[in-house]
Amino acid sequence: MSKASIIGAYNTKFGSFINKNKETGEVTDLRSIYELMLEAGRGALSDAGIEATQIGGVWVGSCAPGLFVDQEHIASFAAEIDPEGLRFKRMTRCEDACASGSVALYDALYAVESGRIQAALVLGVEKMNLLSTKGITHALATCSFWPEEGALGMTFPGLFAEYAKGYRNHYGLDDATLALMLASAAALGYRNGLENPLAHFGRGGPSDRLGLTSADAILALPPEKNPMIAEPLRLHDCSLVTDGAAALVIVGANHPALKKGRAVRIAGIGQTSERLAISNRVNMHELIAAKEATRLSFSEAGISSKDIDIAEVHDCFTINQLLCTEALGLSADGRSGYDYIDGRFGPDDRVSINLSGGLKAKGHPVGATGVSMHALLYKQLIGEPIGAAPTTVPTVGVSLNVGGSAVTNCVTVLRRES
Amino acid sequence: MSKASIIGAYNTKFGSFINKNKETGEVTDLRSIYELMLEAGRGALSDAGIEATQIGGVWVGSCAPGLFVDQEHIASFAAEIDPEGLRFKRMTRCEDACASGSVALYDALYAVESGRIQAALVLGVEKMNLLSTKGITHALATCSFWPEEGALGMTFPGLFAEYAKGYRNHYGLDDATLALMLASAAALGYRNGLENPLAHFGRGGPSDRLGLTSADAILALPPEKNPMIAEPLRLHDCSLVTDGAAALVIVGANHPALKKGRAVRIAGIGQTSERLAISNRVNMHELIAAKEATRLSFSEAGISSKDIDIAEVHDCFTINQLLCTEALGLSADGRSGYDYIDGRFGPDDRVSINLSGGLKAKGHPVGATGVSMHALLYKQLIGEPIGAAPTTVPTVGVSLNVGGSAVTNCVTVLRRES
Repeated sequence: MSKASIIGAYNTKFGSFINKNKETGEVTDLRSIYELMLEAGRGALSDAGIEATQIGGVWVGSCAPGLFVDQEHIASFAAEIDPEGLRFKRMTRCEDACASGSVALYDALYAVESGRIQAALVLGVEKMNLLSTKGITHALATCSFWPEEGALGMTFPGLFAEYAKGYRNHYGLDDATLALMLASAAALGYRNGLENPLAHFGRGGPSDRLGLTSADAILALPPEKNPMIAEPLRLHDCSLVTDGAAALVIVGANHPALKKGRAVRIAGIGQTSERLAISNRVNMHELIAAKEATRLSFSEAGISSKDIDIAEVHDCFTINQLLCTEALGLSADGRSGYDYIDGRFGPDDRVSINLSGGLKAKGHPVGATGVSMHALLYKQLIGEPIGAAPTTVPTVGVSLNVGGSAVTNCVTVLRRES
Repeated sequence: MSKASIIGAYNTKFGSFINKNKETGEVTDLRSIYELMLEAGRGALSDAGIEATQIGGVWVGSCAPGLFVDQEHIASFAAEIDPEGLRFKRMTRCEDACASGSVALYDALYAVESGRIQAALVLGVEKMNLLSTKGITHALATCSFWPEEGALGMTFPGLFAEYAKGYRNHYGLDDATLALMLASAAALGYRNGLENPLAHFGRGGPSDRLGLTSADAILALPPEKNPMIAEPLRLHDCSLVTDGAAALVIVGANHPALKKGRAVRIAGIGQTSERLAISNRVNMHELIAAKEATRLSFSEAGISSKDIDIAEVHDCFTINQLLCTEALGLSADGRSGYDYIDGRFGPDDRVSINLSGGLKAKGHPVGATGVSMHALLYKQLIGEPIGAAPTTVPTVGVSLNVGGSAVTNCVTVLRRES
């Protein structure tokens, strides 16, 4: 078990923070990537009750800020969070597509564990909505194996559709059963999202207005309201294009900023990389590399799936929510869809999944997502949940953050310290 | 002093590996970013005499592959170096503009020092020349503070021209003296580049054909052959736009792959971050944050400037070569220009700078540069120099790798182990 703990966290409101002039089409930025970083970084330091001068380094997860907002070298902007306290500190961006936030946390963890620093600030940020849909699709497609996938017009819905087809074929599902499974997973996200005041699709948002709190409601949508994106995945199988940031403060053992009841141990981590090109995959009905990351993190933490109280899983597409649920062992292989149909994994279940609303409703600012998962699990585990929550404060929380077409897989086990 | 060592390194040929059809203008790729990664990664593993299965993780420094070649999530491609041995390993890209290679090494070092892994593969790669000059300029400008700099048309020559003007003003130099200083620094790079078979501008290349081995030769060029890019910086004050990759293998103490005479200790590191916007700088005649990185790394290694035998410094522009030389204490403040005029820092001097040819002649594939600096220092320190070399095998080598407008500053002290 790692000796490092999360001692503070912050999550900005997630959403699409732009204004589009209906006449000219001109897009203006209502909350820039810089504002999002400052808010999240300052929020996490304040939440942790730590001075910026005590921070030994900053790691920033961001997927494609060069493409989204013309800003590479984004990590160094973190000095502006507190120019007196952070100037001259080490600042490094980490990128592994949609798992950028988790790998930033892991690299910060190594630095703390090495003893070189005692405390780190971990930020995740993405500002996606300034681009056109075409630009966003292109930026995301660069996270596939470009020569064989993106360059040939393959998009991420298409890549995960391959998993959906693989799952359907392997388990001999008919189209209606698979659609019901996927819609059931989506509905859980939408229901939880209504309770999360930071969610992109929250109370009063599109899923609320359309009443999409059940699989039946989603499946009853007319095709034009839920068009096929990449067979068998429809619009409501896809997560959101979101602007947002999140941040964590982590410290080593015996750090003076550790406070009783507000520390959550990073009990175990697992990071694995599958081969980038989907043409190299054999099994398309399971996440082999995510299962390996799960094994590594559970082994380090000394837990099994049965010990998990809450989980945040990477529902970039509903099929991935099913696959991640199985990779963590929260459902048996091939059974997660039935479990979602049965209404499992809500706030009142033995184990709750995506209480935040997940990428489906909370939103998916790609480079921020991994950090946001940890931030909201932290809040649950210290008994200050943002949104839906189990009736008793959970002890063990797990995140499964995926980058690319299930290429980078990051599993973290978090444990509340008594 | 760190307990980790470099035990193998590889540097691909640097150059512009494209073919441009003179009639259609169509550009074809002669050596892709993928080929460069595979060659460097396999070369370093082979050089280290280590099996891929023994590697615990891969860190990849790359600055802007999403902009240059439409490929984010590039780290995960490293599995292809050895799909049997590397599949499922952790792979993370690190980015801090032109210091991406060094920060990738440092994050790998932390992982080794944490004890989580025993060996790491560190790669640096950039493929720049597929884009037009306009596209390249844009990609690099995203490493400035975009809203205040890149978006307003400020380019990197312009940003470093501010340092050149600051240096000129602070030390009261006339234009001719400054020009002579800068040309003397450039000439050293060109001379050393002729000896480096991997250099972009090597034997038979443009600087050789033009005979640019002295400041006089550079200053004698007619203006159309050496145009002003951003006053006072001319074309031959700028480094090259280069495709290339480099790789290192690092291991912890007592690793079985450590071999006598082929291990170079990472004796000390220092990474600092200056505020991103140049408008926040006060001193424009010195690299304050690089001096702090120097202090940190020298303190850890227990050395002073006098102990340095060879250095690779970040001559993205000749003015930065002067400033880096002073930041490392190899010249007194304000004296480096005179030292270069005096012909100091060649292979036969007490301390040699940029024996590789530097960014000026070896070339500057931005995300690869930091790794390349360490790779070629390693080769010097084990007595297998590539190109120009001191007459006796050096003991202490130092790299100063800079990202952005002197924002990220990475200083590594390497020491030959006996």
